[in-house]
Amino acid sequence: MAVYTEVSDEDLRAFVAEYDLGEVVSCKGIAEGVENSNYLLVTARGPYILTLYEKRVDPADLPFFLGLMHHLAGNGVECPLPVPARDGEALRTLCGRPAVIVTFLSGMWPRRILPEHCAELGAGLARLHLAGDGFPMRRENSLSVAGWRALLEASRGRADEVKPGLAALLEAELAHLEAHWPAGLPAGVIHADLFPDNVFFRDGRLSGLIDFYFACTDLLAYDVAICLNAWCFEPDGSLNVTKARLLLSGYRRVRPLSAEEMAALPLLARGSALRFLLTRLYDWLNTPPGAMVKRKDPLEYLHKLRFHQQVRSLGDYGLEAVPAS
Amino acid sequence: MAVYTEVSDEDLRAFVAEYDLGEVVSCKGIAEGVENSNYLLVTARGPYILTLYEKRVDPADLPFFLGLMHHLAGNGVECPLPVPARDGEALRTLCGRPAVIVTFLSGMWPRRILPEHCAELGAGLARLHLAGDGFPMRRENSLSVAGWRALLEASRGRADEVKPGLAALLEAELAHLEAHWPAGLPAGVIHADLFPDNVFFRDGRLSGLIDFYFACTDLLAYDVAICLNAWCFEPDGSLNVTKARLLLSGYRRVRPLSAEEMAALPLLARGSALRFLLTRLYDWLNTPPGAMVKRKDPLEYLHKLRFHQQVRSLGDYGLEAVPAS
Repeated sequence: MAVYTEVSDEDLRAFVAEYDLGEVVSCKGIAEGVENSNYLLVTARGPYILTLYEKRVDPADLPFFLGLMHHLAGNGVECPLPVPARDGEALRTLCGRPAVIVTFLSGMWPRRILPEHCAELGAGLARLHLAGDGFPMRRENSLSVAGWRALLEASRGRADEVKPGLAALLEAELAHLEAHWPAGLPAGVIHADLFPDNVFFRDGRLSGLIDFYFACTDLLAYDVAICLNAWCFEPDGSLNVTKARLLLSGYRRVRPLSAEEMAALPLLARGSALRFLLTRLYDWLNTPPGAMVKRKDPLEYLHKLRFHQQVRSLGDYGLEAVPAS
Repeated sequence: MAVYTEVSDEDLRAFVAEYDLGEVVSCKGIAEGVENSNYLLVTARGPYILTLYEKRVDPADLPFFLGLMHHLAGNGVECPLPVPARDGEALRTLCGRPAVIVTFLSGMWPRRILPEHCAELGAGLARLHLAGDGFPMRRENSLSVAGWRALLEASRGRADEVKPGLAALLEAELAHLEAHWPAGLPAGVIHADLFPDNVFFRDGRLSGLIDFYFACTDLLAYDVAICLNAWCFEPDGSLNVTKARLLLSGYRRVRPLSAEEMAALPLLARGSALRFLLTRLYDWLNTPPGAMVKRKDPLEYLHKLRFHQQVRSLGDYGLEAVPAS
C-alpha cells in the first residue's frame, strides 16, 4: 500500500502546467509500492505516472536513478522515461517533495509465476545489463556485502525473537560471505530489486521494468542471483529447477555468463538471500504493527539461504554441471 | 485506502474476455475508497473502473445500485455507467466476489472546497434528484431516523469513552428527532453520501458523481442536508455561510425547494449530523488500531450537530429568513 502524500488538485494543476502535457484529466493514487507515492495521472496527452519521493529515498540519489532510466530507455529497455518540463528539468518539487512524471508502461505484473515468465525475465535482465554499458554515473550498492554487517548489527540483539539461533546463523553466514565474496567479476548497472511486482507482461511477453530505486553499480551476476531467489522458488519453499534453468538460459542467450560468473552463482545467491533476509528482519522488528505496510516474512529468505548453502553443483539449478557459456 | 482483493492477471484476462473491451493493457489498484476494491483498468478500448464488492456491501442491493447508475446516466447525470458483458449482464463474479466494470469519469475531487464548488454541487445534486424520478426500484434507507436507535444501542455503552456525556446527548437528540422527523416531504432517489471525494470537477465544473453504494429512497431535502454538512463547514468547525448559500441557491435554481422543505432543513441537518456521528462513533470504537483504514473523527459531527441545534432561522445558513422558493 502506498500513497503517503495527498496532492491537492490545485497543487497538481500548477505542477502539470509547467509541462507540455495539456490539461489534467484525472489523477488517482495507486495502491502499489511502499517506498514512494505513485499516481496514475491522465492528461490531455494520455496516461503518465507521477511519483513523489518519500523519506526512504535519498534525494542525492535521484539524479542517478532518473539519469539511468533515461539512458536505459534510450537504449531500448522497456522502462519508464522521465518526462522533462518545459525548462528541460524532469526532477521537480511537489508538496515539498522531490517529484517526477514518467511515461506509462502497459502490462501487468504476474501474480502467479509461470516458467515462460522466467525465460522472458532472464532475457530482459540481460538486455538491461547490456544497455547499462556506457552509463557514466556510479552508485555504490550500500546493500551489498560491505553493508551487511551494519545491517546485522541493527537486528542482531533481537534476531532470535524471530527464530531461536538466527543471530548465530546470520553471523556465521556473513563471515563466510565476507571471506569468499568474489572479486573481478563483470560489474555494471544492476536493478537490484527485480521482484515480480516490478516486471510487467503483456500477452506473455515482458512489456516493462519499473522501480529503479535500488539500482546501483555492482556485479551483474549478483542481479541474476537476486532474480533466481525472487522468481524461481515455489510457495512451498522448493526451487523450481525448470524456472531456474529458463531464467539462466534466457539470460545467457542475450549476455553469456563467464565460467567464473557461473561458478560464483551459488555464493551470490547466498548473498542475495542474506541481503533480503537482513532487510526484512530489520523491517519486521521495527515496523509498528499498526503501520499501513504489509511486513514481509524474513524466514522466507532463510529457507532460500539454506537451499543455496547446500548446493553442490550448478545441476542443482537445473543446469548441466559443467557450465557451457 | 482500499484494494482488499488481489486479482491475478490470469483471472482478470478471463473476466475481461467476456466483454467486448479488447485486450487488457493495464490494471492498477486505486488507493481511494474504503468499502470496495477499485482498479483502474485500461483495455484496448480505453480506461474503465473495475470494482469488486467487499463484505460491507449487501449483494442483494447491487441490482438497485447498478440499475440506478444506468437510469441516471441515461438521464444525463455524470455518473459511472455499468458496462454489460457480451451476454448483457453487467453484474458478474471475479475472485469469488460480485464485480462490475463501469465507465471512467474524468476530473478530480477537490481537496480544498471553494465556494464555486458548492454552487456546482448544489445544481448537480438537484439534477440527480430530478433524473431519479421514474426509477422504478426502491431501497429503504437503513441509515435514516428509523435505523438510528439500533446504531446508538451498538455504541451507547462506550460512547462516553470518546467524550464524557456523549451517550446522554445522543439519546436526547435521537428522542427529539424521532418525535419531530418530518413526514410528507418530497421523496425519491437520494445519493446519501455525497462527500467531496465522491464528486469530480474539471476546470471548476462538476464532471462526475461516483460511489452510489449508499443510495436509497428517502427525503430529497435530506440529501441537501447531508451535503450542507459535508461541504460547507470549515476545518475550524464554523459554517461558511457563503458556501451554504451557494449550495442551496445552486440546488434551487434546478429544483425549487418548497416552503416545507426549507423549514425542515435545520432538523434534517441535525439528523444528517447524528447519522454520520453515529456511524463514525461505531467505527471509531470497533476499528482495531492496526486496520488499514483511517478512522474518521466522530466529534467533527458533534460540532456540526450542535451548530444546527442552535439555528434559529434560515438566515443562519446565509439565506433570507423567509424562504423564497
